Amino acid sequence: MRALVCENGAARLRRDYPIAPRAAGEARIRVVQAGVCATDLQLIAGYKGFSGVLGHEFVGVVEEADNARWIGQRVVGGINRACGQCAPCRRGDITHCAQRDVLGILGRDGAFADSCLLPEANLHAVPDGVSDDQAVFAEPLAAALAITDQHPIAPGERVTVIGDGRLGLLIVQVLALTGCDLTLVGRHAEKLALGEQWGARAGLASEPPVARSQDVVVACSGEASGLALAQSLVRPRGRIILKTTSAAQQGAAELDLNALVVDEVTLCGSRCGPMDAAVRLLAQGVIDVAPLISARFSLDQGEAALTAAARKGVLKVVLQMTC
Amino acid sequence: MRALVCENGAARLRRDYPIAPRAAGEARIRVVQAGVCATDLQLIAGYKGFSGVLGHEFVGVVEEADNARWIGQRVVGGINRACGQCAPCRRGDITHCAQRDVLGILGRDGAFADSCLLPEANLHAVPDGVSDDQAVFAEPLAAALAITDQHPIAPGERVTVIGDGRLGLLIVQVLALTGCDLTLVGRHAEKLALGEQWGARAGLASEPPVARSQDVVVACSGEASGLALAQSLVRPRGRIILKTTSAAQQGAAELDLNALVVDEVTLCGSRCGPMDAAVRLLAQGVIDVAPLISARFSLDQGEAALTAAARKGVLKVVLQMTC
Ligand SMILES: [Zn+2]
Ligand SMILES: [Zn+2]
Repeated sequence: MRALVCENGAARLRRDYPIAPRAAGEARIRVVQAGVCATDLQLIAGYKGFSGVLGHEFVGVVEEADNARWIGQRVVGGINRACGQCAPCRRGDITHCAQRDVLGILGRDGAFADSCLLPEANLHAVPDGVSDDQAVFAEPLAAALAITDQHPIAPGERVTVIGDGRLGLLIVQVLALTGCDLTLVGRHAEKLALGEQWGARAGLASEPPVARSQDVVVACSGEASGLALAQSLVRPRGRIILKTTSAAQQGAAELDLNALVVDEVTLCGSRCGPMDAAVRLLAQGVIDVAPLISARFSLDQGEAALTAAARKGVLKVVLQMTC
Repeated sequence: MRALVCENGAARLRRDYPIAPRAAGEARIRVVQAGVCATDLQLIAGYKGFSGVLGHEFVGVVEEADNARWIGQRVVGGINRACGQCAPCRRGDITHCAQRDVLGILGRDGAFADSCLLPEANLHAVPDGVSDDQAVFAEPLAAALAITDQHPIAPGERVTVIGDGRLGLLIVQVLALTGCDLTLVGRHAEKLALGEQWGARAGLASEPPVARSQDVVVACSGEASGLALAQSLVRPRGRIILKTTSAAQQGAAELDLNALVVDEVTLCGSRCGPMDAAVRLLAQGVIDVAPLISARFSLDQGEAALTAAARKGVLKVVLQMTC
């Protein structure tokens, strides 16, 4: 089959990639569309030392499964395979399974291919009213929902999102649904305009909110400077939600730990979220994905798609497998 | 009056320190005993650029006040003076008042003196059953209680305290009262033995708990390496409570922010806590302070007291004003 494969610091399209055997309990999914994410670009650059088929945002149709009810069903999928036995699994923290593999990220081939495999337990049926374009956003939308899933936001709170990229604009849409007093800080006028359309006050990075005024700051710019800005904006006893991983972050030099203690600020790491809630919000039609799609490529043009996704200012690049 | 004054990177005893006028709403307190804290040593070393009388842990007797009911009352005191008007004060976060001064730390002379001044609103009466030796621990005990005040710990949780110093041993006593499964990690056998006596499993720093096993890790060793150890011990979705400020922490180089995101760990800065709860616990007799007092000095020997407090392995040094 065709597959966009990450190896040795590059991604290349292979047309002869072997079709893996399906294990018991797994479904084989014919991929319809897939989305390119910042993590894909980081994996190519060497983050986590991943080699294999990229891609973890997808919508597809089940071709093979143990349970016949899945066959022919349009699905999205949770990306972490859980063992069900380890301490995190027993706690219900299945996205933190100690033995997990992660679709297109860790030990499991991903969705930038004609097909991929996932446990049936990871599948979520996509209702008829949700388009493929909407469904391909289920995984990053779930990541946005991870914020409120773990750290609920009250309607009266002041919240700033730093970063007007793909993820930041989904986070704005999700947080606006809480009714909170929301500001988006970014560098791109046209993206800030999208944030305004979705209920956020827009602030150029050069004109952020008043220092120490925000109950919650979400840092999702992927830049180390975003964390320092977050710390300057958050109020004493407020919380900073850190949504993105990056090579630049590993030093953490931008974080003032003494100020964190004195101001009693809470810094919350946040990753994968609830796919079922994401599908529900998409079905309700309250998440606008059309303006987030910057470009579409066929899988045959997969290498060009990754190049396009890496360009500054580009939002979501969608891979379409059947054209 | 006599006062132990921090200026130009040293602390020296002055016998002719001027007695400040008492403002409306303030009480003048004759200090009976005071405790030396790591923060005092950091202030001498230049942290926060403080100059003035040191000391923020004390028990004393009110000599002058607007409200006659305080006169002659034995008291301890909250160290942050709040304006009552700013945003944090209106939220009830009075220890984060934007205009605050802090006894012996920020803009207000402290308690290593014959007397000090605090707003009457900051005073807490000490019940007769609480000795001076107990009462002088009210402020650091409140700092220990700040942990559970802001981030409640459930009885079934596994909790590790890193750091067997003055503060760590108070934190152990407070957290043991939750019924949690508690471990103290430190470097000193005799202090670890105290931790065991108070309900904690003791682990030498060379033999910490199993990696990724702890629901909560409290880092209060004041060493940068404590934070890296905390991150290795905490479970995915667990929380790290950071209790100490230090010059070494400002770089934060020991913190892996990518791992914080992937493991969805929460890092919580924690500072001052509820003085009223501290006094209640002291009155209940469930906090054992006697083993924590390493040495006693008169105020006349104040400089020697600070030198003693800086020695490795020394716990609380108490200054007695009237001997
Ligand atoms: Zn597991
Ligand atoms: Zn105030």
